[in-house]
Amino acid sequence: MTEPGFSLQNANVAIIGLGLMGGSLALALREKNACAKIIGVDHDETTRAQALARGIETTGELDAVARADLVILATPVRTIIRLIPQIGARVRPNAIVMDLGSTKREIVAVLERLPAQVQAIGAHPMCGKERAGFTAADANLFRNATFALTPIARTSPQTLAFTQSLIENVGAHPLVIDADRHDQIVAAISHLPYVIAVALMHTASAYARKDDLTFTLAASGFRDTSRLAASDVDMLLDVLMTNRDYVADAIRASAQNLDTLADAIERGDENALRKISLGAAKKRRAMFVEV
Amino acid sequence: MTEPGFSLQNANVAIIGLGLMGGSLALALREKNACAKIIGVDHDETTRAQALARGIETTGELDAVARADLVILATPVRTIIRLIPQIGARVRPNAIVMDLGSTKREIVAVLERLPAQVQAIGAHPMCGKERAGFTAADANLFRNATFALTPIARTSPQTLAFTQSLIENVGAHPLVIDADRHDQIVAAISHLPYVIAVALMHTASAYARKDDLTFTLAASGFRDTSRLAASDVDMLLDVLMTNRDYVADAIRASAQNLDTLADAIERGDENALRKISLGAAKKRRAMFVEV
Repeated sequence: MTEPGFSLQNANVAIIGLGLMGGSLALALREKNACAKIIGVDHDETTRAQALARGIETTGELDAVARADLVILATPVRTIIRLIPQIGARVRPNAIVMDLGSTKREIVAVLERLPAQVQAIGAHPMCGKERAGFTAADANLFRNATFALTPIARTSPQTLAFTQSLIENVGAHPLVIDADRHDQIVAAISHLPYVIAVALMHTASAYARKDDLTFTLAASGFRDTSRLAASDVDMLLDVLMTNRDYVADAIRASAQNLDTLADAIERGDENALRKISLGAAKKRRAMFVEV
Repeated sequence: MTEPGFSLQNANVAIIGLGLMGGSLALALREKNACAKIIGVDHDETTRAQALARGIETTGELDAVARADLVILATPVRTIIRLIPQIGARVRPNAIVMDLGSTKREIVAVLERLPAQVQAIGAHPMCGKERAGFTAADANLFRNATFALTPIARTSPQTLAFTQSLIENVGAHPLVIDADRHDQIVAAISHLPYVIAVALMHTASAYARKDDLTFTLAASGFRDTSRLAASDVDMLLDVLMTNRDYVADAIRASAQNLDTLADAIERGDENALRKISLGAAKKRRAMFVEV
């Protein structure tokens, strides 16, 4: 069994990608004085300057991971997949490689192929904003969020405990879950809402091309339901392209539910409509209490 | 031409239904000292007590409209349709009847059948909350909202000017629009987002029945996209049932767009996905600037 020779308190942490997620994690760990050293690795000079201005040490060189006990990959999913072998070739024996990618199956498959002496675990914080980049980063982003952890075959109990401790330090709740199960659930609970927002925006835009008052009548309901359509497209394309089967299933199910509702409305079946709407209202109100 | 013998400043206003809309309008008009007298008419004793506690004079008697210069109907749509003839039988000659119903075609058809000496106009403030009732009422609800006005054949220029002035007094922007055109647009921009939220909640609930971690992984994206599913079901059923053809059209268009996206995801057509997603992101970001 691998035995990491470090605790979170004395760990040297490298975060690759100082966007919303990586930047927020760097700020959160620093605010808590959770680890000995944090270095942010980002190829973008402007991003590095923004991070430095908020007290995060940065570099543009991937070789910096050679000095890290923990390497956290916080780029879009397909960049994570491309970087993992490069990280594997550079890190110390017993270093931990962890990623924050939004889909897990393809990533854990690549983590499994790391050199045998490297520890690894997948992760995915269930929080976000539609704004991307370090300027949107927030030390409180993870507070009270569920933080999925997808261990792989080699993940030692020490590595699991170490990452759980890191997650708790930033105020989130670790949840150990299988990568396949994670991907199927997030297809419905995270990727589907994005696709729905895009489809709504697309539908409304077709109306707007025919009638220029369309968007003038938009109010808070449209604003909230379409919000995710403003998300970072490159990040989301990576997500959709690495979870194609499960996302397509979720979209088909949702389109079918829409057709069922359209059928009920067309035939004036108020009882059917009421039953579905009341069921949805009851569950939604139980899930989130809002003012 | 009908000549109202009153200005907004000296008008006696009766608001029927002290829910979110009627209650907010009563509070907004009172805050601005916009009219001489406001009386709220509501059959529910608890609602009347809540309104009275916030300084709104109330009654449970519809006969109170006999003393009003302006009667504003702020109940769910099908109650408005049922009440209009009863209001018509009770009001003074030259009184104005206005409603705040979310669909306009069926309502203006009933307004047209009022006694000839009664003035009338349809209206619809484009704002809301998923919480209903007087406890959710807010004097600022209408601020910066578009406030649709659907005149009917008999609507005099004085009546139109009077209602425009009322709308501007509560901080909203009047927009004169044909009832049919209004209903077609709001089907896509307001009713569709509600139905989409219901369908999303319904889809996710099916996942949750198979996997009890489903809702544990829900984050802010799911919360916002599903928010409207928590709306008042009775109010929304009235809306859907009085705008069936246009709502069904909008749902079908949206379901088709979802299927197009699922097709692109299934065949891995990243260019098609990128084109639709970028178009939606660009329009959404131009519409709403958020932090």
